[in-house]
Amino acid sequence: RINVDRLWDSLMEMAQIGPGVAGGNNRQTLTDEDGEGRALFQKWCEAAGCSMGLDQMGNMFAMRPGTDPDALPVYVGSHLDTQPTGGKYDGVLGVLAGLEVIRTLNDLGIRTKHPIVATNWTNEEGTRFAPAMLSSGVFAGMHTQDWAYARTDAEGKSFGDELSRIGWRGEEEVGARKMHAFFELHIEQGPILEAEGKDIGVVTHGQGLSWTQVTITGKDAHTGSTPMPMRRNAGLGMARVLEKVDEIALSHAPHAVGAAGHIDVYPNSRNVIPGKVVFTVDFRSPDLSVIEDMEARLRVEGQKIADAMGLEVAFEKVGGFDPVAFDEGCVSAIRNAAERLGYSHMNIISGAGHDACWINRVAPTAMVMCPCVDGLSHNEAEEISKDWAAAGTDVLFHAVVETAEI
Amino acid sequence: RINVDRLWDSLMEMAQIGPGVAGGNNRQTLTDEDGEGRALFQKWCEAAGCSMGLDQMGNMFAMRPGTDPDALPVYVGSHLDTQPTGGKYDGVLGVLAGLEVIRTLNDLGIRTKHPIVATNWTNEEGTRFAPAMLSSGVFAGMHTQDWAYARTDAEGKSFGDELSRIGWRGEEEVGARKMHAFFELHIEQGPILEAEGKDIGVVTHGQGLSWTQVTITGKDAHTGSTPMPMRRNAGLGMARVLEKVDEIALSHAPHAVGAAGHIDVYPNSRNVIPGKVVFTVDFRSPDLSVIEDMEARLRVEGQKIADAMGLEVAFEKVGGFDPVAFDEGCVSAIRNAAERLGYSHMNIISGAGHDACWINRVAPTAMVMCPCVDGLSHNEAEEISKDWAAAGTDVLFHAVVETAEI
Ligand SMILES: NC(=O)NCCC(=O)O
Ligand SMILES: NC(=O)NCCC(=O)O
Repeated sequence: RINVDRLWDSLMEMAQIGPGVAGGNNRQTLTDEDGEGRALFQKWCEAAGCSMGLDQMGNMFAMRPGTDPDALPVYVGSHLDTQPTGGKYDGVLGVLAGLEVIRTLNDLGIRTKHPIVATNWTNEEGTRFAPAMLSSGVFAGMHTQDWAYARTDAEGKSFGDELSRIGWRGEEEVGARKMHAFFELHIEQGPILEAEGKDIGVVTHGQGLSWTQVTITGKDAHTGSTPMPMRRNAGLGMARVLEKVDEIALSHAPHAVGAAGHIDVYPNSRNVIPGKVVFTVDFRSPDLSVIEDMEARLRVEGQKIADAMGLEVAFEKVGGFDPVAFDEGCVSAIRNAAERLGYSHMNIISGAGHDACWINRVAPTAMVMCPCVDGLSHNEAEEISKDWAAAGTDVLFHAVVETAEI
Repeated sequence: RINVDRLWDSLMEMAQIGPGVAGGNNRQTLTDEDGEGRALFQKWCEAAGCSMGLDQMGNMFAMRPGTDPDALPVYVGSHLDTQPTGGKYDGVLGVLAGLEVIRTLNDLGIRTKHPIVATNWTNEEGTRFAPAMLSSGVFAGMHTQDWAYARTDAEGKSFGDELSRIGWRGEEEVGARKMHAFFELHIEQGPILEAEGKDIGVVTHGQGLSWTQVTITGKDAHTGSTPMPMRRNAGLGMARVLEKVDEIALSHAPHAVGAAGHIDVYPNSRNVIPGKVVFTVDFRSPDLSVIEDMEARLRVEGQKIADAMGLEVAFEKVGGFDPVAFDEGCVSAIRNAAERLGYSHMNIISGAGHDACWINRVAPTAMVMCPCVDGLSHNEAEEISKDWAAAGTDVLFHAVVETAEI
């Protein structure tokens, strides 16, 4: 069993960096705070006897050597970046659990045949730079590195420039590493495990995602002196599209979800009818055809709404991934570990996207999930119990060590 | 007749300060650019032989002396501040037309019995600090100065601090001046005069306004892993309230308008269901009972929507003024001037709020309006013709001089 007190202390120490305003974290990718978090992780990894690799996307790879010089490493990790009002566990638990696997092996003096590499993927959240899971995506060949470098944040700063600025742009070619397997522990970010009273989610699939950025253009005009029939109110157009997004997602219930988390209104003045609104619609489903249907209906219905109101509308796909089926061997390793350790478990489909969803394309991959209180995540109040962290990390430890072979 | 080339040159020179991104202006109140605009206006007023008064709200009063030491001054002006994406004429025309009245009197060597005071009211727009017409409102005793000083912008900076920072906080007690009359020239900011082919709007009334800030609170949660029935989506609640705002305003058509120009979504991340949305609803009508009905229905309908969705909603009135009937004598002076000068004219109700609406409470007041292209205002593309500016300023000149007596 892993040392949950040590794991918990590390989680709490990491959470000191980039504190939020309500007990959680704001340690967004490629900020100074992200740099500080990385330095702390590197310090811990080196103290555990690992050597740190760093690739051109800033992905971090802390290697504990194996006994067989020809054996590919087993990778284990997640991400250290957070939402602007994020929790202390989303991503961080998976990275520090990877480190805890190594620390526990050190405690026990166990050597594995395959090296074990604790990993931190850059910009999983995608808030500052869309899309999410950007750097595991480049690693898996889903995006080119040039395209990733050119992603900009709301202030127009580019991913490439910011990565250099914080000093975490490495030399190593991205995706050059070959993996024996990849494991990721993550909090569920949903309510199912807690509701079912299970300690462990054996993640068999991940649902797919589509992010469509919608730009509605009307005409800035005075809210007082512009007669109602002359208005081209982009804000009202946005309201009508949001209602449709809900309707479209609900039409596939319970196999789909949909919402807009990001909405910017211009010029955002109390007495100016909005001339432009930009927002991003997030649709998800475990079924690719459902995602495609929702995307298509958004475009059709959005265009109808715009036409009826004298507005213009443009749609741009700014992120997406297909539903994923994880590797059967890795999934079994997780299920067997939970079984062996006596933890209650169930199969689960991941509602969120994870680095594992991309890495699954280039290596045998699976995920372990642990519950979180009220299913709450992407919220500073995100919480887990120490017991849940222990169960998830124990299962991760056993699955990793079994796969890395003693 | 006034010198329209000089007036136009001054308008264009002022528009150099705080340029927008699309040919208009961003010279928001109490910014450095506002300070620069004020300095330029003061320079021009002093060159025209005026002495400048400055009160504790930063209101500027450039006085051309009269011949009768006991006669109260006739005030003429508007505001130099602009919307974030505003035009070159909204407010600015009225201030520089006031100066042009003085310059023309100087040219003609005419002395008036009553002094004439060209005026710039601070923070008419209300974008940076709500409510609009803040400083004319303090002048007219509608708000206390302490309350006005405590208004904050989106960054939390206070009106009082910012007024001091830009160096335009005067010593003079606000509202201490007594006025013989107040005249304001303003662009219509609506389509009526242009559609009717009239050069001059004789403003008999101003419609009333109500600004209600609505805060909807739900729960930040992950857009992927939170099942639809568990969501408390404040963004969707906002969308439904915006639809109601439109419905409520249209139910009183054509005697009311309604929209939300200001909408802030939190935390505004693509994969976080909005936990909070703050927006301001702007309702207007020339009929006070209609405004009261719309306000009340917004609260009832907003509460119903929130209750049905498991959201919380709070309403705060952040601005408002009652419909106004301008002074009959001043209105006649404007109508007579238009008639005498041979300009086509019609009576009109102001759709927007103006400093004149507040000053009307403490002095005989009226407004002249000139058309603007396509009725467009609060937009960088706001435009007027030189002929319209000339007609409006000529009428203003005659009404002011008649009232100030030669
Ligand atoms: N786990 C997680 O929140 N990932 C970000 C990508 C997504 O929104 O699913
Ligand atoms: N004229 C003008 O735009 N005033 C600002 C107050 C209002 O929104 O009516």
